[in-house]
Amino acid sequence: MIYGYDPRTGQTVGAALEETDSAGVGLIVSAAAAAGAAWRATPAAERALALEAVSDALTAHVDELWRIADEETALGEVRLRGEVARTAGQFRLFAEVIRDGGYLEAIIDHADASLAPPRPDVRRMKHPLQGVVAVFAASNFPFAFSVAGGDTASALAAGCPVVVKAHPGHPNTSERVAKIVREALPYPDLLGLVQGMQAGIDLVQHPGVVAAGFTGSVAGGKAIQKLIDEREAPIPFYGELGSVNPVVVLPSAPVKEVASGFAGSLTLGVGQFCTNPGLMFVPEGDELREALVEAVEGTSGGPMLADRIRDGYLGGVERLGELRLLAEGKPGEGAWAVTPKVFTTDLGTFAEKLPHIGEECFGPASIVVTYQDVSDLRPVLERLEGSLTATVHSSEPEEAGEVAEVLAGRAGRLIWNGWPTGVAVCWAMHHGGPWPAATTSFTSVGATAIDRWLAPTAYQDWPDALLPDELKEDNPLDIPRRVDGRSQM
Amino acid sequence: MIYGYDPRTGQTVGAALEETDSAGVGLIVSAAAAAGAAWRATPAAERALALEAVSDALTAHVDELWRIADEETALGEVRLRGEVARTAGQFRLFAEVIRDGGYLEAIIDHADASLAPPRPDVRRMKHPLQGVVAVFAASNFPFAFSVAGGDTASALAAGCPVVVKAHPGHPNTSERVAKIVREALPYPDLLGLVQGMQAGIDLVQHPGVVAAGFTGSVAGGKAIQKLIDEREAPIPFYGELGSVNPVVVLPSAPVKEVASGFAGSLTLGVGQFCTNPGLMFVPEGDELREALVEAVEGTSGGPMLADRIRDGYLGGVERLGELRLLAEGKPGEGAWAVTPKVFTTDLGTFAEKLPHIGEECFGPASIVVTYQDVSDLRPVLERLEGSLTATVHSSEPEEAGEVAEVLAGRAGRLIWNGWPTGVAVCWAMHHGGPWPAATTSFTSVGATAIDRWLAPTAYQDWPDALLPDELKEDNPLDIPRRVDGRSQM
Repeated sequence: MIYGYDPRTGQTVGAALEETDSAGVGLIVSAAAAAGAAWRATPAAERALALEAVSDALTAHVDELWRIADEETALGEVRLRGEVARTAGQFRLFAEVIRDGGYLEAIIDHADASLAPPRPDVRRMKHPLQGVVAVFAASNFPFAFSVAGGDTASALAAGCPVVVKAHPGHPNTSERVAKIVREALPYPDLLGLVQGMQAGIDLVQHPGVVAAGFTGSVAGGKAIQKLIDEREAPIPFYGELGSVNPVVVLPSAPVKEVASGFAGSLTLGVGQFCTNPGLMFVPEGDELREALVEAVEGTSGGPMLADRIRDGYLGGVERLGELRLLAEGKPGEGAWAVTPKVFTTDLGTFAEKLPHIGEECFGPASIVVTYQDVSDLRPVLERLEGSLTATVHSSEPEEAGEVAEVLAGRAGRLIWNGWPTGVAVCWAMHHGGPWPAATTSFTSVGATAIDRWLAPTAYQDWPDALLPDELKEDNPLDIPRRVDGRSQM
Repeated sequence: MIYGYDPRTGQTVGAALEETDSAGVGLIVSAAAAAGAAWRATPAAERALALEAVSDALTAHVDELWRIADEETALGEVRLRGEVARTAGQFRLFAEVIRDGGYLEAIIDHADASLAPPRPDVRRMKHPLQGVVAVFAASNFPFAFSVAGGDTASALAAGCPVVVKAHPGHPNTSERVAKIVREALPYPDLLGLVQGMQAGIDLVQHPGVVAAGFTGSVAGGKAIQKLIDEREAPIPFYGELGSVNPVVVLPSAPVKEVASGFAGSLTLGVGQFCTNPGLMFVPEGDELREALVEAVEGTSGGPMLADRIRDGYLGGVERLGELRLLAEGKPGEGAWAVTPKVFTTDLGTFAEKLPHIGEECFGPASIVVTYQDVSDLRPVLERLEGSLTATVHSSEPEEAGEVAEVLAGRAGRLIWNGWPTGVAVCWAMHHGGPWPAATTSFTSVGATAIDRWLAPTAYQDWPDALLPDELKEDNPLDIPRRVDGRSQM
């Protein structure tokens, strides 16, 4: 049986849930596939309404949902209410995306007999993948990267059914969310839920599964990749794994704002964000160092999501102990509580200890690396692993040119005078980056996350009567298309 | 040493070429990476001019090129001149693509303080992958899918350097094309060439390689995928593998045109196309059967590209021998010549022998499956492997609805009253399809082939002075962008 645990007490909470056995996984995938056939055939306008119904249902249940999740995660009311709102908002964004239709990348090249060889009429658009999308939920976002998270919302928007493998950190929250979403969908089986580690293995190896999304650790991602590699037919694996999120503070940056912003971003949600600033380069100097010590000492720890995650943090902090402790926050309260810790070293020492010192330590720990001259940074930044984000603090863009150029190759999102935690859900967001930040160049947040669950089809001299509406000559759905090489709104 | 062979005589032709050893592969990849850094930084307008210079250089050398290739492939003057023109045309298309700029998928979301939480300014565009693209050349297109083929043209257009592993079927052609392209490029090392099987292995496992393109057999594709799976950091593998390209002839189709079109498409280039029609479903009846026999008997075979390919064809034909021989063409002349053969069976027998009977036999062989009723086709078509193409012949679109729906899930390109050989190079082309036609949902032909070599970056509150021109507020390059959710031409 599977139980939820309260991180504040370490005790079980909620109902005992059964693990899904192999036969159960098979039935759930088959039911999802059957529902998916009807969903694919549903016009985009109706799919958009269904996504909005899911959004409304989540919003309507927020009072209940934050409480269940808080029992299992200890993330607190404010954060969890905000996360439900964000999760509901993601469904609204994807409703907008599929109404717009640009995501289908419709392209029309009319026949041209004057060419050698003569060109037939060729039209192309994307369609949902034919089969079931498997989603592996994350621990640290019980709503926004879980059962009804961005992977699920974008896959449903694309036209694909989804089966989620619940994260063991919040099994009851997962069940409740699944029920709410299923009731709001026109075909409830469009969303399936499985519980248990073996169920996850069965899921990703099921022949009916055509793609998988994952948010979690590097080790977890590698394990799933290995299972996928064993499949006869390869399927895409969209994993968002580890990220250290380097921050470079340039000499012109304001000291006080940097110190307080860093401490806040580092300890938000007990540091349990994939965008947590785990590494910061700062100019040598007493003023900034003292401000950092003061800011970090003003923070408090708290209980982590699971005992395994807490143990991982403690191991990571031990590893960082080869550096000097700069400051620590107040210990948190609760069974699985940890204390924020910031270590420090100089640029030369840090470079010597690469690559191992540059690996992510999940939780409220970070390394402050001091440098003497901005021009010393380049060779060190070039050696960093890929990250989801890289941040520059500076009040003079000219000062940042070289650093910005290097960081652009190391991260999927570049941030100016801000902090990496907090990922805006919008059209332009990219939440991904070079390995090990992500397994592919796709994003798991923002409008273009839908691209993961689509594949194009070309139609050659195909009769207008049989073409999808999106490709018919008179553009009845009024979507953006490229016609004979020109973009048309 | 590596030698080219003349398929007409089986004797070596051209110079003896050295295999590239591991150290050589390392040097070539490093040189390509260094040239790539300068190429990335080159404005799109200049990159477009360089692509056009390559196009011109290929065109200028056509008299020489077709002869070298003909010695190694026996594909003949007309086909090879046409293929050089197509190859040159691909570079021109990609020059147009990068001048247009739409492929960068630039998106801008302005800051919005009214949202909860407030949204920063977020801008996103695609950039070339940072590193070297490995291309594995195909046997059957010594120009268009080889050293200067679509993979190379699209990767160079994206801004990536390329190292090609030459196909052993045309080593001298490969050397000559590489020299011509290198001389036309502003940085010659943007295109590297390696020879030999071990060099291919070294190439795809080199840490400087960030993506690989491949056109070839299922077995070859699986072997490369396995090498990639062993890498520490995964890289995308864009393989175009096997395809049987089903054709469905419906009762209303004109008998004579179908028979002659089929025989022509089947035997073009000795059937050595990945889009060769290897399977055709026809209504039972004497008239069409007799027309097919007559048309196939009017064809001639010819020498295949390599003895290994000839052996593969003979093995495939032996496998198909469990069906009844419907007709065969005249034997071809030359050392590695083969004879076109068409086998036949009824729908029930064919279904019993799936899946093995549905596998590709590379060369001028096909199966004609007779059916009694159109409504019997669906369950059989649903069981076919993925293909690059699927074709319908009919004079009544209403008659084709159900068949079209099933085929849409089994192939990347749907063709109406045409033949699958001949892939138009245009904006809308999709040359890919479900496994084993391709390893991913990307295309290897047409404008969107460039998508394979790109990865997005998001810029948050990034100063205009540091933004790429494509994302600056006033759109100095005048490219299509999506701003605050709306497509703008």
